[in-house]
Amino acid sequence: MTAERIAIIGAGPAGMKAAITVGDLGAEAVVIEKRDVAGGKPDEANYAALTPDLRDTEEAFEPMMREFDDHDNIELLTGSQVIDSAGSVGDFTLTIENGDGTEQLDVGSVIVATGFDHFDPGEETQQYGYYEFDDVITLPDAEAMLKEDDFVRPSTGEDPESVCFIQCVGSRDRQIGNEWCSKVCCGIATKEAIEVKEQHPDANVIIFYIDMRMYGFWEDELYWKAQEEHHVRFVRGVATEITKAGDQVIVKGEDTTMGRPYEIPMDVVVLSVGMEPSEGTLGMSEILDVPLENHGFIETVGGPLDTVTTQRDGIFVAGAAAGPKDLEDSISMAGSAAAKAVTTVRQAPTPAADGGHSDE
Amino acid sequence: MTAERIAIIGAGPAGMKAAITVGDLGAEAVVIEKRDVAGGKPDEANYAALTPDLRDTEEAFEPMMREFDDHDNIELLTGSQVIDSAGSVGDFTLTIENGDGTEQLDVGSVIVATGFDHFDPGEETQQYGYYEFDDVITLPDAEAMLKEDDFVRPSTGEDPESVCFIQCVGSRDRQIGNEWCSKVCCGIATKEAIEVKEQHPDANVIIFYIDMRMYGFWEDELYWKAQEEHHVRFVRGVATEITKAGDQVIVKGEDTTMGRPYEIPMDVVVLSVGMEPSEGTLGMSEILDVPLENHGFIETVGGPLDTVTTQRDGIFVAGAAAGPKDLEDSISMAGSAAAKAVTTVRQAPTPAADGGHSDE
Repeated sequence: MTAERIAIIGAGPAGMKAAITVGDLGAEAVVIEKRDVAGGKPDEANYAALTPDLRDTEEAFEPMMREFDDHDNIELLTGSQVIDSAGSVGDFTLTIENGDGTEQLDVGSVIVATGFDHFDPGEETQQYGYYEFDDVITLPDAEAMLKEDDFVRPSTGEDPESVCFIQCVGSRDRQIGNEWCSKVCCGIATKEAIEVKEQHPDANVIIFYIDMRMYGFWEDELYWKAQEEHHVRFVRGVATEITKAGDQVIVKGEDTTMGRPYEIPMDVVVLSVGMEPSEGTLGMSEILDVPLENHGFIETVGGPLDTVTTQRDGIFVAGAAAGPKDLEDSISMAGSAAAKAVTTVRQAPTPAADGGHSDE
Repeated sequence: MTAERIAIIGAGPAGMKAAITVGDLGAEAVVIEKRDVAGGKPDEANYAALTPDLRDTEEAFEPMMREFDDHDNIELLTGSQVIDSAGSVGDFTLTIENGDGTEQLDVGSVIVATGFDHFDPGEETQQYGYYEFDDVITLPDAEAMLKEDDFVRPSTGEDPESVCFIQCVGSRDRQIGNEWCSKVCCGIATKEAIEVKEQHPDANVIIFYIDMRMYGFWEDELYWKAQEEHHVRFVRGVATEITKAGDQVIVKGEDTTMGRPYEIPMDVVVLSVGMEPSEGTLGMSEILDVPLENHGFIETVGGPLDTVTTQRDGIFVAGAAAGPKDLEDSISMAGSAAAKAVTTVRQAPTPAADGGHSDE
């Protein structure tokens, strides 16, 4: 049944959605996940609630997780990684390594759904003191506290009176080599700012930004809502330096709308770290021999008219493995990639498909 | 074969892509298009080149058009509109009207791909003088000139020395009732600004904006490119008034970065008009009994985890019928909606599907 079996690498939102779609279309999905559980970044990074609808993450994902877990046509290999590949469209052989050793998997097509990594704000930029100051954290650090319903000053465990978000950390930055906009950080920071205000209504919450990229319905459903209902403040001009003074951190930058510098003491600073190609994405590019585009994500062909087809016949991509994507993008791409992969294995000229595609 | 036939309403990018995916998956797509040709807005509104890759629109669409035209499983009904519907999932009956009268179409599922309309800047807002001044035009008006390789001052036919774009016309505006961001106008205006500079390298080209929403790779591939390679100027602060002085128009507003008012004579002003639900979208909502969300687009269920499923079982949506979408969104959604529609018709409990789905 090689011809109707599709490997999906990564069991995050894109991988799960792709697997469900493949399974629903009557083909067999084998999902290879390096972690011990499915769920991907929203699970791994403790997302508290989804952007833009602020729905509880676990609750929102529950129906999809159940569909994924219960699907007759989906097999999940956890603690597993693809370490080698051979063959071509219709007849790939992947070598999978897990705790017990290696095994071979024959598939007709492959969907790469290896996602992104959060930019590490300590490694390449010193200006924000991430590894120096306890109260300087990242978007995922904040998520973890929000998920526990306990957003506090990390240094003291006390309620914060002032919290700010600094946008574009690791994005839109030629100096560190990340020239892209990570697309989702404006929305996620705004969502987190609302959640902080819900837990601490009296706190002064500010987002320092360059452009608020609140496209589509995020504009009124998230951006206006944050301002009007939750009194989150938005100040144009990202901080350029963070220092320490007493038990607070001092955020320095320029308010480009008012045309004057600011220097504000803060209890907690959240760095809105962007997306980078994940290790898995880079690894799969090598192992599957799928070229990267010039930012280092998996390259797709066909410009805006084909979002999932890679340079290599029979190999597709879904989600943030192909660049900065929001959850909607990943979900739409996953369905689209699954349809392409199923079509491919049914049309591929393999022995199993002689005289038409095979039925179960 | 009702059970394996899917109606797709609209033959724009989303509709064509959905039809191809349905056809590739072995089901039958019937595409109902009110115009006499397929192609949708990129064709109807004379898009010169695509955003973000500036590839010639006709050339970029050519492979997709060919696939669509030649597909054995796709039937295109032009000059046709759905005027009534009955039935439910697995067994819908649509009444189609064309020049010759009406006919009934039995389908198992429906994909709504009725797209958007451009905001009409003359009807609801007088401040920009669109119907008053010949040299005040819209993004699609500019596309038409760019497509002819002849971007001129409409009032004189001469080469323009100064061209500006005013962002967010009909978007992010509570007063006119369009609270959403239209998502693509920043990218499209920047693309057009580059094209204007290519035709008129010495012209002064300015984009007046609130936030430049150049997400993902648009940041460096389009936004930085416009500034660095083509010397397009970006000024924060949209114009609030346009008046006439001599043979030029005067654009007035406030540069919020410099904190001072501007009043600049311009040869051509391009209004970056946003997206509104199309007439077809509103009509299909009524005829198919598919609810709209609170901005007036087709409502989807499941938040960011399901981009294509409407409130009505068996009816899906793809593209800008569901809200402001870029071309990538529309294409990804189309593939995803097609996979869902095919799954639906194969799983629907209809007489034709007794004991499993039917094969060709």
